[in-house]
Order: sequence, then structure tokens, then C-alpha cells
Amino acid sequence: MKIDIFDTTLRDGFQQEGISPSVKDKLAIAKLIDELGVSFIEGGWPGASPKEEEFFSKAKEELDLKNSKLVSFGSTRKLNIAVEDDPQVKALIDSGTDYVCIVGKSSKLHITKALQTDVPNAIDMAVDTIKYLKSKNKKVFFDAEHFFDGYKEDSKTSLEILDSVIQSGVDCFIFCDTNGGTLPDEVHMILSEVLNQYPESKFGVHFQNDNGCAVANSMVAVELGVDHVQGTINGYGERTGNADLCTLIPNLSLKKTYETISEDSLSKLTQIANHIAELVNVAIDSRHPYVGSSAFTHKAGLHASGMAKDNVLYEHIDSSKVGNFTRTTVSELAGRASVITKAQEFGLALNNEEAKKLIESVQNLEHEGFQFEAADASLFILMNTIKGVVPNYFSFESFRVFSERRNSENVVSEAVCKISVKDNRYVKTGEGVGPVDALSKALKSALEKDFERINEVKLIDYKVRIIDSSDGTEAKTRVLIEFTDGTKQWSTIGVHENIINASWNALCDGFNYYFMTS
Amino acid sequence: MKIDIFDTTLRDGFQQEGISPSVKDKLAIAKLIDELGVSFIEGGWPGASPKEEEFFSKAKEELDLKNSKLVSFGSTRKLNIAVEDDPQVKALIDSGTDYVCIVGKSSKLHITKALQTDVPNAIDMAVDTIKYLKSKNKKVFFDAEHFFDGYKEDSKTSLEILDSVIQSGVDCFIFCDTNGGTLPDEVHMILSEVLNQYPESKFGVHFQNDNGCAVANSMVAVELGVDHVQGTINGYGERTGNADLCTLIPNLSLKKTYETISEDSLSKLTQIANHIAELVNVAIDSRHPYVGSSAFTHKAGLHASGMAKDNVLYEHIDSSKVGNFTRTTVSELAGRASVITKAQEFGLALNNEEAKKLIESVQNLEHEGFQFEAADASLFILMNTIKGVVPNYFSFESFRVFSERRNSENVVSEAVCKISVKDNRYVKTGEGVGPVDALSKALKSALEKDFERINEVKLIDYKVRIIDSSDGTEAKTRVLIEFTDGTKQWSTIGVHENIINASWNALCDGFNYYFMTS
Repeated sequence: MKIDIFDTTLRDGFQQEGISPSVKDKLAIAKLIDELGVSFIEGGWPGASPKEEEFFSKAKEELDLKNSKLVSFGSTRKLNIAVEDDPQVKALIDSGTDYVCIVGKSSKLHITKALQTDVPNAIDMAVDTIKYLKSKNKKVFFDAEHFFDGYKEDSKTSLEILDSVIQSGVDCFIFCDTNGGTLPDEVHMILSEVLNQYPESKFGVHFQNDNGCAVANSMVAVELGVDHVQGTINGYGERTGNADLCTLIPNLSLKKTYETISEDSLSKLTQIANHIAELVNVAIDSRHPYVGSSAFTHKAGLHASGMAKDNVLYEHIDSSKVGNFTRTTVSELAGRASVITKAQEFGLALNNEEAKKLIESVQNLEHEGFQFEAADASLFILMNTIKGVVPNYFSFESFRVFSERRNSENVVSEAVCKISVKDNRYVKTGEGVGPVDALSKALKSALEKDFERINEVKLIDYKVRIIDSSDGTEAKTRVLIEFTDGTKQWSTIGVHENIINASWNALCDGFNYYFMTS
Repeated sequence: MKIDIFDTTLRDGFQQEGISPSVKDKLAIAKLIDELGVSFIEGGWPGASPKEEEFFSKAKEELDLKNSKLVSFGSTRKLNIAVEDDPQVKALIDSGTDYVCIVGKSSKLHITKALQTDVPNAIDMAVDTIKYLKSKNKKVFFDAEHFFDGYKEDSKTSLEILDSVIQSGVDCFIFCDTNGGTLPDEVHMILSEVLNQYPESKFGVHFQNDNGCAVANSMVAVELGVDHVQGTINGYGERTGNADLCTLIPNLSLKKTYETISEDSLSKLTQIANHIAELVNVAIDSRHPYVGSSAFTHKAGLHASGMAKDNVLYEHIDSSKVGNFTRTTVSELAGRASVITKAQEFGLALNNEEAKKLIESVQNLEHEGFQFEAADASLFILMNTIKGVVPNYFSFESFRVFSERRNSENVVSEAVCKISVKDNRYVKTGEGVGPVDALSKALKSALEKDFERINEVKLIDYKVRIIDSSDGTEAKTRVLIEFTDGTKQWSTIGVHENIINASWNALCDGFNYYFMTS
């Protein structure tokens, strides 16, 4: 069965706290979602703001969608106004999309409390708007706000509205769980009762994730015959977000046999989800199903040794089907199998002797406080060192960094580092917002003559822990640094009593990794 | 119906990539989970590493659990070894807990492929281990690894194992979805078939979240009569994590009528979830159901205006029931009551005006990156400041700290600080293993003449995180410092672009708190 995936990332998704993309971002994201090949892309609410109008006007000129239909979103006409005179209904028509989606009340509580009117008025608002938009040759979808809550409070009113909307010729009636509180058994009960009464009509669902069940609820609805499902990329949305299409699509296509997007598009899911995450500047949780960086990462020794025998033993699907990767992390729990597998991921072949040496080194270093599972690049350097390939791009002489604050909040950090590259000795300074930034700048400045590209490398994250915290500041300090050169990312670790030296070691690993792999 | 909540944060949760807590952290987290009042806390795998053994040995001495039973985790005995001779079974007994949970195979594929033996052998391994542990007066739970996948592949084998385990006298048989790929309709189908056959036995479930349905699956199982549910705080765990107790518990208690933890404990859920997140140094997703910072935050104009009329219009539960706050992104929040309660904990009486001011300050500071859940002492100082009690034990003039390394690994950090106490100006130096230690020593040296007891104060933990990681080292740095004077402990926070200044601010808060309360 074909399921229409209706993406509302650009509208409902962007009601998430902290997301506020430009029109240019929205256009770029629309293209990526189109590449994914969903049926519908809801672009925004043209009547809501000039930015939204600008999006639709640019979309007409620039957005050449290959797979998806663009949808504009709005509301039923306002109370006590003729539908022709409602400016936000006019904006829907002017948006130029063939499809429109309007939200309307379907709960008695909301009609009386939020809208402060009665049921017949609310029905007229819906029916008038649908008929008017149909007369303008639009395909009309109706988002029945609060349908599930309304049905639980007063099913008669919700069913009356449903019936009127369907009789008015709507193209799809969407059951919305606006507050996200409805549980799968309730969805099953309510939809079982309702759907049977309209075997000829087209229905959709729209779930928010306030109880963590938005994906499961959507699955329940599809199993009952609903073939239009609304959601967002990475589950973005108001409060706890919307049904997550990056989980829902593979669930429907790979774990069931529904038709959603093509196999080829599905294999780009991880890449597209991460690309959109970058555009909206909200990192994807590493634990995100299917598309997160840890989604197919194995840490426990039991699992890692099972994985070495056969991936199917500890993975529910083949990770490449969603464009993700299987990884094992090397930790003190790891055995020889996972170490060799890990080396293969780096393109390094370890013989048994080398694997044994590596496990010993990892165990000793982890005993000292190292932790390699979040520091792939340092592990890569360690593996190379065990194979006799020791990085020697530069040699260390000294560093010195100071931080100072006088009276005001104005704090300065300055560093001097002395290193040699080939036969040249460099004494360079760096000024930074903190001591690590200052050291990084001094070191780059000493390296840039011989390694011009070093200035492309940026530090993007920095984490610090005291390892044996019973000793406090005199205990060892573990520093994790994450780097990027604009395309790839890598992480390194440094451990030392002194946080500055631990940071220096992690910095050096990060730059060495870059030189070894670029 | 009472549902036993089985928390496996300390064991399965910490198999999450990037989490590697110390024994001290584990003990602190166990206390917090006990405060939540779950039935069982799985502490770890005593046979797996010296660190795990140390946890159980310290737990015996230090961990005085008020509500929960501590459980040690292990595996069935190894193949071809007598159960008495298996060191990891011995470690289970030595751990000293009354309850043990062992994992065993329940899938034919895993028995033949991963274990490379036959079904009768696998059954013997399980039955021998259960009987032996029972003979040592342990309550024994059996985690049936891969039960659902096994049942789908070859139900006969899985049922045979189930039957043998139950006949051996196990105290609870737990159906595990180890690969996290089972969907709610499959859980419903499989458990419906199995549970009817054993009306007298006690069953549990354990779901991983690889398809985003772990919470929904757990709900399905409970509705079918299962009354033991395993999961983790914030859903931590291998790959995509485990069933999230912070979602599951409120779903069961607030959206259904099951008994899980007390109403009072539930109202601390957000606070405890955030505190644990700070201890493991993995931020909670703002969109996390129930406990995320955006879980009850309203941004859309439609919703915000509805909220102004009545919270019930756009919220599925009352946020205070889980200790969270309703916010709209423009106007201010509710939650005055909980701020007043918090002040009372400190022995401070806030009037309504002061509570309002405090909420505003906290909001503004949290917007800047502060986070007070794990920094009670800084919150105490903020509350006092709002009441007009500003600590003035010393006044700041300047600090300067440098760190240097020449050739060897020998690194030095030295600090100079200038402060005044009463009318005396002090210029003091400190030498430390790192810059913060050096600053702390210089500051103590300047204070010790007037406050002799200051030398009793020690720093016992230090954590750093970059807050907006897209800017890397130039973003803000958040420092948490934990102090002790040998009897009590307290924590403070500092936020600044420069890690040294953030640390300095947290140090000053820590010393001020000591003076104010001792």
C-alpha cells in the first residue's frame, strides 16, 4: 500500500523553540526534502508574516520540485467574516500552490473556550472555507485540530464536524493530536470506530510527541488503513516535536512493507537528515533512531563480539539501507574482535600481535583515564603508532599560556608556543577568548607556513571531566576536543593532571590526524 | 495496578557511547534514582571489571537505599563450565545484593550463531544458573535476550526456553527486544499468545528504542498485564538507547492509572532527570517529553494565545506534576510555587515579589547558559542576593594565572590574585597542578588570615562544557565545581567565554557559600 508522506518541517517543525531559519534556508531545505521524495511539502503559512509570503513568492520562481507537491497552510475563515473577505484565506489562494491545508476546530472545548462560539458557527467556518477554496480549484486538506481530545470529551461534536467537512468535498481529513497526549490504544480505539463509517474517504493523521508515542501512533493509524501521514524531519516541532519522519519512513518501508519513498532516496536519509540539521543549526541526537551517529554503534563487549560474527545478531536492519554506518567503539570492555573490526573501519589491517598490543595499550591508557570511544582520531593515531607509523609533522619545545582579569569582566588569554617543523624553529604567539583558543592559534600560526590548509581546521566542541573526582583539582583531567575542516569531523582526547597540558595533547592529536588523513 | 519500575541506567544506560561515569558518579546517581522511588536499581555487572566490583563493594558500605532494591547483573554460566566454577556467577553472589538479573539466550539464531551450541545446552546454562543462584537465596530475574526476534524466527525454541526457565523457579521472566526492532503490533501479538499460557508467573519487558517505539511497546505490554518494566533515565543506552523511564513513568501514572512511583517523587522527575544528565555530562534534548526544557514551551501564536485562556487547551498534562514549567517564548512562566519550595529547602522565605524576581533572574541566566539543577550553592547565593543579602567577605581586584611546559611532561601552573578582606589588601600566589588549582590556592592564601577554616574546603569535582558548540572554543564555557569541607558537599556554576574566568566565578561562589552557611 502506498502511504503519502506529508512533510511539515517548514511549517510545524519550525515552531520549535530555537529554530528560526531564513527564507534561503527554507528553500534549501525544501529541495532536500524533495530529494527524499515525500508526497507533500508544507511550506508555511503565507498569511502569517511577510517572511512566509516571501518564501511562497520565491518558491514560485526558484523551487523546481521534482517529486513533491508544495502545500500552503492556513486556517478556516475567521468568525463573523465572509470567507472572500478573510485576508489569510486570500493569501492561501495567492500563494499559488495547487494544494492547501487548513486547520479547523474539531473539539467542543476549543470551540467554546478558545474560539468562544458555538458548534454550528465552527462548522460554517470550516465548510465555507473548504467550498470557497475548492471553487478556486485548490485541493484542500483539513487539519482537524484536537480531534482525539475532542472525541474523548464529546464524540458527538467531533463526529458532526467530521461529517460536515467530508460532505463539503474536502480532499483529505486529517485527525490531529495537537497536544500530543493520545496513547496508541486510544488511537486504535477511536480510529477503529470512525474509519469504518467512511470507507470511501481519504484520511490522514498528525501526531505531536508529548508522550513519546507519535511514531507508534502513526503506525497504528496506518495499520488501520490511513494512507496520509504528517510529520517532520528529525521530529522538529513545537514543545516535544512532531512525529519523526526519519523514524517513521524506515519503520513503514523496512519493517513493514508499505510504499513511502524510493529505496534509493531512503539510502540518503541519514545524509539528508544531517544536512537539514546543519541548516537549522540543531544537532541530531546521537541516539536518534536510524539517522543518529550512535544508531548502529556497538560498545558492550557481548554485543561487539556478536557483531563480529554477524551484523544481524545485534542490528534490527542493515544500516546502509538508511545511509548510516555500523561502528564498534573500543573501550576497556572490548575484545580482540572489536579492535580488529575498528581498525578495518579506518582502513588499517592489524595482525594478531598488533591487535594484542593495541588492546594492552587501550587498557593501560583507559586505566589512566583515557576513553577512546568518543575520540576516534586519537585511537587512529594510537593504531598507527603500534604499526610503527608515528606522526612527526612537528616537534615540541615549549608552550606558555596566561590568563588575566583586572577589575572588569574583561579577561585576556595569550599563548606562546615554540615548535620545529622540518629544520625551522618557530616561536609564535596567539591571543584567544580562553587559554585553549590562544594555544590553538599560536600552534596554527607556527604550522601555517608549512601546512597552509591548517587554517581550515576549527575546534567545534570541548569537554572536560575530572577522572578520579575524589582527588578534585589534583586528580587527572580528561579533555575531549572535536574538530572540523568544513567537511569531515573528528575527535581527540588528552589526559593529564594539568587541564592545559591535556588540552595541548588533544590539540596536537587533532592536527596530526588532519595531516595524516588529508 | 502496581507496576515495578526496574531502572537499568547504571548498567544498560551506561553502555551509551560517550558515557563513562566514575564509581562516585554511579553512587550519586543511584541515590537520585532511589529518591525517585523505583522498585529496582540495576547497579552494574560485578564480574565485568574492577570498576564495577568497586561500585558494589562501596554500595554495601555507603549506599543506604530508602525505596529501591539494588540488583546486580550477570549472565548465565559459560558453556562447558560448571556453574560453581564460573567466576562471573561467583561475582554475582559476592556482590551482596539480594536480587540478581541474568541475561540468557532465547533465540535459536543466537544460540547457534553467537553461542555456537545447541538449544539443550543453552537451556542447561540458564537452568543451572537460576537454580544455583536460588540455592544461594537470591531472587533471580531472567533477561531473555532477543526473545521477540527469536519468537518470530522460531517460536518453538523460544517457548521451550521460556518454559524451562519458568519451571526452574525464576522470580521474573523478562522479554527483551535486544535489537530494538520490534513494533507495537508485533509485541501485542506475541505477548497475547504467550502470557495466557502462564497466568501465575511474573513477567517483565525490556525494550531498546531502535525503531522509536520502546515506550509504546512497554505500554502495550503493561496493558496486557505485564507488571515489571525495565528502562533508563532519559532513555540512555546502547545505540538509540533504552525505553525512557522519564516518559514511561508519567505515561503510566498520569495518562493511565497505574501505580509506579509516588506523586511526590513524580513531581521531582524533571529535576532528577536534569541532575543525572549533568552528572553523566550528556545534555537532555530540549524536546524530551515531560522533562525537556521545551516540553511545555509554547511558541506558535495560535498556541500561546490559547494558553493565555487556559493551559488545558494546549497541554496534555499539568507540567508541575512532573516538576516542569509551562513557558511561552515571549512572556514569563508559572512555577512560583516550586521556587518558593526550593527556597524553603534552603531555609529562606521568599515573598511573591521576590519569587517573581528570582524566576526572572533564573530565566535570564539560563538563557545565558547557566543551569542551576546541579549548582545549588550558586542558586542559594542568587536567592540571597535577591533578598538583598549580597556576600561581601572579600572584594576582587585582579587575578593572573599562567601554565607552562618545557620539553618534558613537567607542567607548572602559577597564579597571582589580588583581593581585599575588610581593609586589608592581599597579593598572594599559588602553585597548582593546573590553573584552577593554582587560582584556588592563591585565593585561599589571601583569605586564610581572616577565615582560618577556609583550608578545610577542598575541590572534589570539576566539569566543563561548551554551551553553543557550533562556535567551539569561542562559545561560552560552563564550569561546575563541587566542594566539600569534609562533612557537607556543595556545587557552584560559572559561565563565561573564558574557561579561567568561569572557573574563578564558580570558585568565588563556592567560598562565599561556605562563609554564608558555616
